[in-house]
Amino acid sequence: MNALEYTSTHQVLYYECEKTKRLTLPMLLNILIQVSGEQSAHLGLGDDKMEEMGYAWIVLQHTFEVTRMPQTNETIQIMTKARQYNKFFCYRDFFVRGEQGENLVTFTMVFAILDRNQRKMVRIPKELVEPYGAPFEKGLVRIPKPTVLDEKDAASALYRVRYFDIDGNDHVNNSKYIEWMLDMLGAEFLASHELKSGTIKFEKELVYGQMVNCLASLSEKDGAQSSHRIQTDNQIHCTASFEWH
Amino acid sequence: MNALEYTSTHQVLYYECEKTKRLTLPMLLNILIQVSGEQSAHLGLGDDKMEEMGYAWIVLQHTFEVTRMPQTNETIQIMTKARQYNKFFCYRDFFVRGEQGENLVTFTMVFAILDRNQRKMVRIPKELVEPYGAPFEKGLVRIPKPTVLDEKDAASALYRVRYFDIDGNDHVNNSKYIEWMLDMLGAEFLASHELKSGTIKFEKELVYGQMVNCLASLSEKDGAQSSHRIQTDNQIHCTASFEWH
Repeated sequence: MNALEYTSTHQVLYYECEKTKRLTLPMLLNILIQVSGEQSAHLGLGDDKMEEMGYAWIVLQHTFEVTRMPQTNETIQIMTKARQYNKFFCYRDFFVRGEQGENLVTFTMVFAILDRNQRKMVRIPKELVEPYGAPFEKGLVRIPKPTVLDEKDAASALYRVRYFDIDGNDHVNNSKYIEWMLDMLGAEFLASHELKSGTIKFEKELVYGQMVNCLASLSEKDGAQSSHRIQTDNQIHCTASFEWH
Repeated sequence: MNALEYTSTHQVLYYECEKTKRLTLPMLLNILIQVSGEQSAHLGLGDDKMEEMGYAWIVLQHTFEVTRMPQTNETIQIMTKARQYNKFFCYRDFFVRGEQGENLVTFTMVFAILDRNQRKMVRIPKELVEPYGAPFEKGLVRIPKPTVLDEKDAASALYRVRYFDIDGNDHVNNSKYIEWMLDMLGAEFLASHELKSGTIKFEKELVYGQMVNCLASLSEKDGAQSSHRIQTDNQIHCTASFEWH
């Protein structure tokens, strides 16, 4: 059996874009997760079903490549399909395409299942993955690791977890880490550079009210490379690196 | 001629909701502004046309009443129409309805036109309002004023304007003021109360990097009433008050 493809169409709205009128990375992420949620609902495995079982899907890792970020008012097609899974991880690909079918962005995400009460990952029940049609493969998929941040050159700032940072899983939504990380680079840099690729790794959830330390370092040769770390005291919550041009 | 009605359908998505699975007020605002922008585009008066003329629509005031906030996955209908206009202000109503046509939320907004370069309001050119079909009326519409904050009982906190707070008009998006104001009330209050009504008045725009002081006071009798002020040094940028149950 081949993995089932699921495609959804989305018109990029003004409030999903940054001041350059390009779709923001955090919002793109929300939209992708929405589309994979739609596939799950379509297969009778939506959030309600997961909640009933005391579970939630969480994302552990993203890696992506951007040919061109979509713009305000553009209509995009998002195709997604599961790639493979093992005992604890599910790998899923996303293909974002323009109106002519041209490739805009590709994403690969690593998902796991959280036990909502115990706040820890569980072995993936077969009935929750088999319907997507992707094969069980014992091994891991190699996802690039974020480059390591150069601590002595890094800028740092504090972000307090706010009420609207928390999602239905009662922890900070994925997209918020990315808002903080990108914000660290400043408006001048962000308005004059475009994302080329990136990889983001989530280590530990954050909850309401925590004070979060964001570190970022930037090096500029052949474009720019940024490295990021989000931590509280001695705990790392997320690392990421991005390539820019 | 009667004011033209414009209706759009929207499915409430998980990332538009707070952890209670209710649509957030800031996101509802974004959606309403999107729908009024669609009507403008439909009439050939979209953002492109405005930008060509060096203008942008800005919102000066909101007043709203909530019967029930829509929930994740719910499909809502948003009907909007201009009500009347005068030399500087346009009044517009929004009606958010559920799948059975039942009333969920009503909103009235006061719009004005900003000269993008001079950063000040201009007299409204007839050709930008007449196509909506609402009458010119010399007088003002009475919009309730926010109740005045009790400064000695108010909590206060600082919010720095971040990159993703800035919209295509190069200033802090309307919805972000509301995120800050509501965040001041804390997760415990927000998760256990529902919005009944509110009124929000914008006084002066905020730009990237500013440090903003948010004040909030809360009184609890027959439900709860909150009053809010957003200021920098001696300048008030926004005041608001909300009724809760």
